[in-house]
Amino acid sequence: MEYISRTDHDGIARVVIRRGKVNAFNDNLIDEMSRTFGELAIDPSVRAITLTGTGKFFSFGFDIPQFLGYSKEQFTRYLTNFTRLYREIFIHPKPVVAMLNGHTIAGACMIATSCDYRVMVSGKARISLNEINFGSSVFAGAVEMLKLLVGHRNAEAVLYSGAMYTAEEAHRMGLVDQVVSEADLESVVDHIARDYAAREPDAFRSIKGLLRRAVAERIEKTERDSIEEFVKIWYSEKTWARLQGKTIHG
Amino acid sequence: MEYISRTDHDGIARVVIRRGKVNAFNDNLIDEMSRTFGELAIDPSVRAITLTGTGKFFSFGFDIPQFLGYSKEQFTRYLTNFTRLYREIFIHPKPVVAMLNGHTIAGACMIATSCDYRVMVSGKARISLNEINFGSSVFAGAVEMLKLLVGHRNAEAVLYSGAMYTAEEAHRMGLVDQVVSEADLESVVDHIARDYAAREPDAFRSIKGLLRRAVAERIEKTERDSIEEFVKIWYSEKTWARLQGKTIHG
Amino acid sequence: MEYISRTDHDGIARVVIRRGKVNAFNDNLIDEMSRTFGELAIDPSVRAITLTGTGKFFSFGFDIPQFLGYSKEQFTRYLTNFTRLYREIFIHPKPVVAMLNGHTIAGACMIATSCDYRVMVSGKARISLNEINFGSSVFAGAVEMLKLLVGHRNAEAVLYSGAMYTAEEAHRMGLVDQVVSEADLESVVDHIARDYAAREPDAFRSIKGLLRRAVAERIEKTERDSIEEFVKIWYSEKTWARLQGKTIHG
Repeated sequence: MEYISRTDHDGIARVVIRRGKVNAFNDNLIDEMSRTFGELAIDPSVRAITLTGTGKFFSFGFDIPQFLGYSKEQFTRYLTNFTRLYREIFIHPKPVVAMLNGHTIAGACMIATSCDYRVMVSGKARISLNEINFGSSVFAGAVEMLKLLVGHRNAEAVLYSGAMYTAEEAHRMGLVDQVVSEADLESVVDHIARDYAAREPDAFRSIKGLLRRAVAERIEKTERDSIEEFVKIWYSEKTWARLQGKTIHG
Repeated sequence: MEYISRTDHDGIARVVIRRGKVNAFNDNLIDEMSRTFGELAIDPSVRAITLTGTGKFFSFGFDIPQFLGYSKEQFTRYLTNFTRLYREIFIHPKPVVAMLNGHTIAGACMIATSCDYRVMVSGKARISLNEINFGSSVFAGAVEMLKLLVGHRNAEAVLYSGAMYTAEEAHRMGLVDQVVSEADLESVVDHIARDYAAREPDAFRSIKGLLRRAVAERIEKTERDSIEEFVKIWYSEKTWARLQGKTIHG
Repeated sequence: MEYISRTDHDGIARVVIRRGKVNAFNDNLIDEMSRTFGELAIDPSVRAITLTGTGKFFSFGFDIPQFLGYSKEQFTRYLTNFTRLYREIFIHPKPVVAMLNGHTIAGACMIATSCDYRVMVSGKARISLNEINFGSSVFAGAVEMLKLLVGHRNAEAVLYSGAMYTAEEAHRMGLVDQVVSEADLESVVDHIARDYAAREPDAFRSIKGLLRRAVAERIEKTERDSIEEFVKIWYSEKTWARLQGKTIHG
């Protein structure tokens, strides 16, 4: 593993994303995360998982500069793998707690919404689904998972505005479940993970399935079409120009 | 156009309902609205739409006196066209902001819930789905759109009580998104419409589709049956007597 | 009827569960409730129903000691009848008001969520879906009905924690609709039932169908599988040991 580290203690596995300054998702990172969550699913010693980033970022989302060199086919394959990853986490048999240590942007916010619980650090960090700001769409699964957390109306506000929310603002609408100071982040998340780990695994997995399986099946039916539409808009003249500007300026 | 006026400025089309004192929906008004929204959908100069009424009413809803002379077949055709209209607005490719300038009752409330955003004037105006008060049912689509805004439990309260809500009460449960004074209504709505108009049209249309298309498809499956049941109850002895009383006394 | 009493006044039928100290659900009680609600559905003199328990309990839920002597087939049959009962109440043509006079635990909470309105007594009574605490799962319908009341995120918190909520806590998240003192419970519930009874029955039934029928159909598709999974976990070594401990110690 190049970009993912895993450390276990007391039945809790901590998964840390470590890729450059902003932990942007490229093909390899997604592949490593997918393999890691696959191993965690069948490891009988693991009863709960925490997922976090490094530095000032949980993750900035997609590694856009890299994709500007991709063909449509390559990019479609990347998006197929990315959306499969968040669906894998969404219906993962073990509880997954997101420890949002910093900025959680776009694709990273989708990963966060796929977890069972989100604790976000207070302060300068922002959380956002800002795709519309550079003329991009999102995916069927991202919309459905967001709606589960904040409801339909707030989901419209989040997606149409592309706003960058503070942890407190995100908490008020349900996009994150708890806000804590940087100093307390580790211990609070550890406490929550221990609580989940104390549940009988079969009962947890079964109840999670009842809560999420039907949603996951609904997503699966429309995800592929939404990726196709996403790609079409992504490579449109205007959006492409904005993405290149984004690469140069930030 | 006899009952609808449209004026465009800066990529924003304002659609105004002008039919008598209460802007009640009859066949012609529905037809004109449907044609207008159809034209707006394909007009490349339009990036956002505002929809409002005149005087003290956004609209009172159905033109009940007129329907007392209708056959069941005529009334069924009217309802089919009416429900198609709110579904057209619900999945319209352009953002639609409802400017609720006054009372927004029954069918008019359904039209309001189909829009992307609702700004309501404070004061004496009321918003209501009061069908139950004269022994009438509603439609599948009306229920689904209401649930998106206020959730299942509030939807039950709204529909079972038939209560007339102030703008503030409606805002608290999510039935309207913003409440402003009469003096500020125009400028606030204009500001919101400009915000929507600034979005990249393809991205907006795509995200709106992800948020609403599945709901619209679910509605389409049950709308026709709900119209049939609505008509059956409407022409039942008790409800018919109440509707005639309504015509005579108010 | 051994465990159910019914008294009617002014078009309102009061159904009271009377079975020992805790009103636990066994086969006979479920059968009697099912027959009672079936009769109420077609009794033209009844316009509203109230459902309550006796003493300190609305109901403790399943009669676990009795089930420890059941074969898997017997227990599966019991659960099939129990889940059918809450679905019958969920889509009952008449309004059903739950008067939660005391503790409302596990299966009893599922029955409460199937009603149209819940009034809970303040004080020591608790409401809970605590299945996870003894290593048990729940059912597809129970999850869907809970989500309608409290939303997806709160439903996760309720089910994963197995927490015992006070009436006030339950009210804050929407699990109950109103909290009143023991002294006022009867009169408040009577007032609410009279309000429902004043609605035109056909309109009420039709609107309730639009709000709930699609949910009921979705439940029906997955309920049987969820019962099978529930039974499998119930008879697993660990859960079985906990259930027996529960029987001996409390």
